[in-house]
Amino acid sequence: MTIGKNCIIAESVTLPEDIIIGNNVRIQDNVAIGARTKIQDGTFLCSGSQIGAGSYLDFGVIVRENVILGENAFVGAHCILGEYLMDFIEARDIQHHQTVIGNNAIIRSETIIYGENVIGDNFQTGHRVTIREKSHIGQNVRIGTLSDIQGDCQIGNYISIHSNAHIGMKSVIKDYAWIYPYVVLTNDPNPPSDQILGVTVEEFAIVATGSVVLPGRVIGRDSLVGAGAVVSKDVPEGKVVVGNPGRELGDTANVKNRSTGEDVYPWRYHFDRGMPWKGIGYDEWRKNL
Amino acid sequence: MTIGKNCIIAESVTLPEDIIIGNNVRIQDNVAIGARTKIQDGTFLCSGSQIGAGSYLDFGVIVRENVILGENAFVGAHCILGEYLMDFIEARDIQHHQTVIGNNAIIRSETIIYGENVIGDNFQTGHRVTIREKSHIGQNVRIGTLSDIQGDCQIGNYISIHSNAHIGMKSVIKDYAWIYPYVVLTNDPNPPSDQILGVTVEEFAIVATGSVVLPGRVIGRDSLVGAGAVVSKDVPEGKVVVGNPGRELGDTANVKNRSTGEDVYPWRYHFDRGMPWKGIGYDEWRKNL
Amino acid sequence: MTIGKNCIIAESVTLPEDIIIGNNVRIQDNVAIGARTKIQDGTFLCSGSQIGAGSYLDFGVIVRENVILGENAFVGAHCILGEYLMDFIEARDIQHHQTVIGNNAIIRSETIIYGENVIGDNFQTGHRVTIREKSHIGQNVRIGTLSDIQGDCQIGNYISIHSNAHIGMKSVIKDYAWIYPYVVLTNDPNPPSDQILGVTVEEFAIVATGSVVLPGRVIGRDSLVGAGAVVSKDVPEGKVVVGNPGRELGDTANVKNRSTGEDVYPWRYHFDRGMPWKGIGYDEWRKNL
Repeated sequence: MTIGKNCIIAESVTLPEDIIIGNNVRIQDNVAIGARTKIQDGTFLCSGSQIGAGSYLDFGVIVRENVILGENAFVGAHCILGEYLMDFIEARDIQHHQTVIGNNAIIRSETIIYGENVIGDNFQTGHRVTIREKSHIGQNVRIGTLSDIQGDCQIGNYISIHSNAHIGMKSVIKDYAWIYPYVVLTNDPNPPSDQILGVTVEEFAIVATGSVVLPGRVIGRDSLVGAGAVVSKDVPEGKVVVGNPGRELGDTANVKNRSTGEDVYPWRYHFDRGMPWKGIGYDEWRKNL
Repeated sequence: MTIGKNCIIAESVTLPEDIIIGNNVRIQDNVAIGARTKIQDGTFLCSGSQIGAGSYLDFGVIVRENVILGENAFVGAHCILGEYLMDFIEARDIQHHQTVIGNNAIIRSETIIYGENVIGDNFQTGHRVTIREKSHIGQNVRIGTLSDIQGDCQIGNYISIHSNAHIGMKSVIKDYAWIYPYVVLTNDPNPPSDQILGVTVEEFAIVATGSVVLPGRVIGRDSLVGAGAVVSKDVPEGKVVVGNPGRELGDTANVKNRSTGEDVYPWRYHFDRGMPWKGIGYDEWRKNL
Repeated sequence: MTIGKNCIIAESVTLPEDIIIGNNVRIQDNVAIGARTKIQDGTFLCSGSQIGAGSYLDFGVIVRENVILGENAFVGAHCILGEYLMDFIEARDIQHHQTVIGNNAIIRSETIIYGENVIGDNFQTGHRVTIREKSHIGQNVRIGTLSDIQGDCQIGNYISIHSNAHIGMKSVIKDYAWIYPYVVLTNDPNPPSDQILGVTVEEFAIVATGSVVLPGRVIGRDSLVGAGAVVSKDVPEGKVVVGNPGRELGDTANVKNRSTGEDVYPWRYHFDRGMPWKGIGYDEWRKNL
């Protein structure tokens, strides 16, 4: 056990034998920490938080009350996990909002994840990601630098949301979808109103850089929304939509790789990095499910 | 009075009897703090700052010199209030730039507000908002996560600026206007130049997601700029403008709610959340002014 | 020598006589600090870092291992210099990635600069800038608030990248180019794929607000990409491209200043703020090179 200077650790907390703790670390009561954990200077673990074995918490992390972090997590400097909801701001007192993050998370520096989220294994964020409350995020999801998940969203598995995307409240993003930088999924059909109509992005769909999807629209399975498109109608399965206002340009099946002339879509037959069919091929993997 | 460990508090400072201060808090001389204030670990109050009664300052907040924060404020973790201007960077020494923030502010974590701003009551920000120097912001203004107010702006009352908007220097936004995510108000008519021609957004106007307003353009009262529009001409009162380049599509008076078939605009007759006419109706409220 | 309370400074470190250090500062072994340096509260200098003479490090800065910061630098609060690459996250142990930043840097608060970058003199950032690994950035480059340089980029000299731009991996930006807010330089020609085709922006080119440049495109010397354009073809030298999809509108030589009726481009004959020909004129300056 290695503990730095000026730490304030509640006496009730049982630390694992092999823990390494830096300076100025504060650990409140009722905190559980797994073996082989390393906690850097200035990090604060609030009451009721749990840190899985083998985790690394960098400088100045705030883990608020009732955050359950899985094993082998990496949490970058200045992150805030379990950020307070509006009820805390009003009451100035802890409200119970558990957030659960699965195993093997990589949460890069300055990311903020609210209380009352459920996030699966192998979660990755870039820097300064914001995830508001009441979202469900599946397994193997990656969310890029500056992206903002506004809360009450359903995000499936094996999804990539790149940098600086804005996922409006009540969005639904299904497995294997791709959201590229500066995409906005909106939700207010008559701004300003109290109605919230989330966007749905179906499986394998691709929403390219800088496109805006209007409230309640459905981006069909295997479809492609081109860069800078403003999507005002549903996009049918396997179609390409481009422009402002968005218009159908044809089938993704006709899109060719400019260098090789080969088909690009469905992309699951041409790309497997980070996918469950990696090294096997999509069809072979499906057969064995 | 409750004071945590390792705090460094100037002897000249008079603390209220009922204050609660965490660990590692630093308070310089000439700081005034109101009753019922709670200051969390690692927060730093610089010389000459004033914190209103009933305020809550979360972990690791920096309140720089000459910030006057009203009563009942909530300031989230890692915020910087009174951020240094260029003259500090050059001189490496404190310059006098007072920033005043009204009562009941909710300033969410990692927000940066510069010195030399005047901000009214009931101000709210999301996370990582940036507000540069020399702006005037009225009462009941909300600014969403990641938005950037570039300075020297005039922002009225009851205005909503959503997430990730960019309000260029010398913009003027009038009462009850709505700015949606990823909107940019530009200001350089001949880039690059030394000329700054700010955009004006008139009362009740709505600038929807991802639109760009070119320098010096006026968005008329009660008008609607559609999502993804590039506004190169002034938008007349009550008109709808969409597309790239933006073109007039008709009157906001003809816009119908897709679900109900009812009129949507002027929105003040259909929406009152957070507005001064809440529960009264706009006309009734006007009569009693 | 002035040193605050609760500092943890390795005995092996030799401090200059005139250094001023705040409270809770941590300095690891093998750190070199130049004369006249001021280090504020809570800042952490990791092993192997070097801080040039006359520098100012504000509150809570993290300077990681092997960062070499030039003379007279200003580093704002909560910045992270030398941020860890993926190999650290995997190994949980320091890997050698030196980052060198030239003299007179102004790095505003909450900026993150990765290890393994080389950055020239007179570098300036806004707030919350992110610079990933393996980029080369020349002299006199300014990068605005929230902008994200994704890594493996070549960025020349005297370049302005304004707020909230996204410079994809393997982008090349040449001397005197201007990138305005919310511009995205993309790089995946067949998303999702493993191919990376960076954009090239040639000398003196201007890419205006909110435009998206598709993978591998070349923005020609002295050309102008209008606000909100989606650039799907190369832009020839001296041409104006606007719209979605982008189309050629004519020559920059024909663009007039709306107020004065004068030519605007080539801008080097009308604008010299921050440029090496300041007060001399471009042609005169060229003659004397």
